[in-house]
Amino acid sequence: MESAIDTHLKCPRTLSRRVADDYAPPFPMFVGRGPKDLQQVVMASFGVQYADEDRRPQALAALRHIVGTFELADGPAHHDLTHHVDNQGHHNLMVLAYWADPAAYCRWLRSDEVAGWWASDERLTEGLGYFREIVAPRVEQLETLYAFTEDFPGVGTLMPQASGEIEEHGYWGSARDRMPISQTDWMEASGELTVVEGDPAQGGRVVVRGHDNICLIRSGQDWRAAGPDERDLYVDEILPTLQDGMDFLRDNGQDHGCYSNRFVRSIDLDGNELDESYNLGHWRSLDLLERWAESHPTHLRIFVTFFRVVTGLEKLRLYHEVSVSDGRDQTFEYINCHPATGMLRDARVPVAG
Amino acid sequence: MESAIDTHLKCPRTLSRRVADDYAPPFPMFVGRGPKDLQQVVMASFGVQYADEDRRPQALAALRHIVGTFELADGPAHHDLTHHVDNQGHHNLMVLAYWADPAAYCRWLRSDEVAGWWASDERLTEGLGYFREIVAPRVEQLETLYAFTEDFPGVGTLMPQASGEIEEHGYWGSARDRMPISQTDWMEASGELTVVEGDPAQGGRVVVRGHDNICLIRSGQDWRAAGPDERDLYVDEILPTLQDGMDFLRDNGQDHGCYSNRFVRSIDLDGNELDESYNLGHWRSLDLLERWAESHPTHLRIFVTFFRVVTGLEKLRLYHEVSVSDGRDQTFEYINCHPATGMLRDARVPVAG
Repeated sequence: MESAIDTHLKCPRTLSRRVADDYAPPFPMFVGRGPKDLQQVVMASFGVQYADEDRRPQALAALRHIVGTFELADGPAHHDLTHHVDNQGHHNLMVLAYWADPAAYCRWLRSDEVAGWWASDERLTEGLGYFREIVAPRVEQLETLYAFTEDFPGVGTLMPQASGEIEEHGYWGSARDRMPISQTDWMEASGELTVVEGDPAQGGRVVVRGHDNICLIRSGQDWRAAGPDERDLYVDEILPTLQDGMDFLRDNGQDHGCYSNRFVRSIDLDGNELDESYNLGHWRSLDLLERWAESHPTHLRIFVTFFRVVTGLEKLRLYHEVSVSDGRDQTFEYINCHPATGMLRDARVPVAG
Repeated sequence: MESAIDTHLKCPRTLSRRVADDYAPPFPMFVGRGPKDLQQVVMASFGVQYADEDRRPQALAALRHIVGTFELADGPAHHDLTHHVDNQGHHNLMVLAYWADPAAYCRWLRSDEVAGWWASDERLTEGLGYFREIVAPRVEQLETLYAFTEDFPGVGTLMPQASGEIEEHGYWGSARDRMPISQTDWMEASGELTVVEGDPAQGGRVVVRGHDNICLIRSGQDWRAAGPDERDLYVDEILPTLQDGMDFLRDNGQDHGCYSNRFVRSIDLDGNELDESYNLGHWRSLDLLERWAESHPTHLRIFVTFFRVVTGLEKLRLYHEVSVSDGRDQTFEYINCHPATGMLRDARVPVAG
C-alpha cells in the first residue's frame, strides 16, 4: 500500500488528510505515476458545434482539420474524439488533447496554422460553432484513479506508470487527499467567470475569463474489451444511474456550482461511435463537486453501484481524473456557439461602462 | 454562523477540518452548549433481558427498581426508558441515564443499595438477564446535532443551551469536525474487546474490557408532537429506510466494526410505547462508523431522505449524539444475558492459561 501522492510531490503538511494512518481501503485502486520532471500538463478541448444534422459532414471535416494540426510541431502527446448532443439540442464534436509540456502547447497554439485558422473571419461564417476550453494544471493540482493498471486513458497517457495499491480512496474527500496540493492548500475558488470579450447572446467571438481553482473532472467508462456479461452490467446497471446523474448536472448544475457537464461518447475520425464514454464536468471548485457527489441522490446511486461491482470487474474499465488550475492557466473561447455552451451559461456579462 | 466547537474548547489545531472557512451548510442545524465547567459526562445503559413474554411484569418491576435507585443520593440528572426485541428474539428493557458529574456517578454506583443489588446472588437466579454498559466521554470527546433548538433529549439535557446555526454539518466527516478532540487527535481504536471475567457461552456474570475510542452513537426520532402530516412522513418515508439500515447493522454490523446496534422504542414506567425511538450503536471507532454511514446503501437512503425533508420539519424532532471514550472510562457487565448481547458477541475470550 502506498500514498496516491508520489514521493517527490510530498511536502510538510499544513492540512491533514481526512483519514488516519490506519485507514484501509475496501478494495484496490491505482493512480498514474508520471516522470519526475513532469511539472504541468495541458488539457485542451476543441469543439465543433452544429444545430442541424445535415451539417454533420462539414463538422466532421472541421474536427479532422483540428486533429490534422496535431501533426504540426509541438502537437499534443495524446488526444481522443467525442460526440454529444447538449440540452439545447445542438450536436458537439470535441477533441480532448493532452500536452506534457505547456511551452510546447504554447508554441503549437501560436503557430501560424493554428492561430491563423482560429482568428480567420471564415470561422464566423461557416455555419458551425467552435470552442476551445483549455486548462493547464500543475502536477500538484491533479489526481487520477483507475480500477485497472494498464493503458491509462486521458491524462494517464502522460502518467503511464501504474502505482501500487493506493491508500486514499473509498471515502468522500479522497480525491482531494490524492492531490498533492491538498497537503497545504484548500483550493478555494476566487473571483467568478466573466465575459471579457463579445456577448454570448449575440454569438460571434466570445472570451470568458476563468478564476483560480476551477475544477475539471473527467470520469470515464470503456467497455470495448468487455465480454457480454460486463456489457450487460454496464448497459443495464451502470449506465442508467450514470445517465440520470449526468443529465441532472447538465440541466441543474448551475444551482450546485457545476458550470458545465458533458456526458460524451467516444467516436473515430469518421464519427462512428466507439464503446467508450466519459463525462467532462467543469465546477466552480473542488469542494462544490465534493458536496454534490457525496450528497446528491443521483450520484449516491452511481457510487453505490460502483462499490457493488468494482471488485468483479475484468475488462470493463472505469476511471476518473480530477484537476484544479490557476485562473491564469485557463482559456475559454467561443465562436458562434449558443449561449448555454460551456462556460458561457454562467459567465457574468459586465455592464457596459 | 458559529463553530460547533464551543469557544472554551477551541485549541491550536494539529489536524484540519475537512472543509475550508468558506464552507456554507445547506440548511440550519444546532448543537447543545453545556456550562463551561462541564468536563465529563456519564452515559449509562442499564438493561433487563427476558426471553419469554410472560416475564414482562417481572422485567418491568426490575426496570422500575433500577429507576427507583436514581432517587438515591448522586443519581443521574436525566434518564429515559426503552424496549426492543433483539435478533435472538429476546426482549430488552433499558434505561439510559446521564450524569454531568462522574464523581457523583461513581458514588451512586458504589452505594450499598446499587452495588449490593448488582452483586447479589439473587440476580443469578431470577430468570432475567441484566446488563450495564457505561461510557464516560469528556466534553472534548462528544458532539450533538439537532434540527431543533429546545428541550434537547439525551446528553443534550446536560448541554441544554442551543447554539446558533453551526458551520460543521451537511458533509461526511462533520461529526468528527464537531468533536473538539478532533482538533488534535484521530481517535483511533486501540486494543480489542476482551472478556475479562466469566464466559458468555456459559451465562452467569461476564465482564468485558473495552478499549480506547469505542464510539457510541444515539440517533433519535421524536414524533410525539407531530401533526398527521409529519406522522405520515415519519412512518411512511423515514421509518422504513431507518429500519432497514438499523436491521442491517444489528445483523451484519460485525463485518463493519459495529459491536452492537439497538433500535429501541421509548416507553413509560408501565411499558407503554411512546412516540419516540432512537438507535444506540456501539462501534469499534468513529472512522468505521463514518465509513459505513457514508458508503452503505441503507444509510445513504436514510441520509437522502433526511436531506429531502429536514427543511420542512416542524414538530418532528430528529437528532443525534456521538461520543468516543477512553478504555478506562468504559464498563460492560452482563448477568445471564444471551451471548450475542451488547459487547459479548464481538469480545475475544482469552484462551485459558
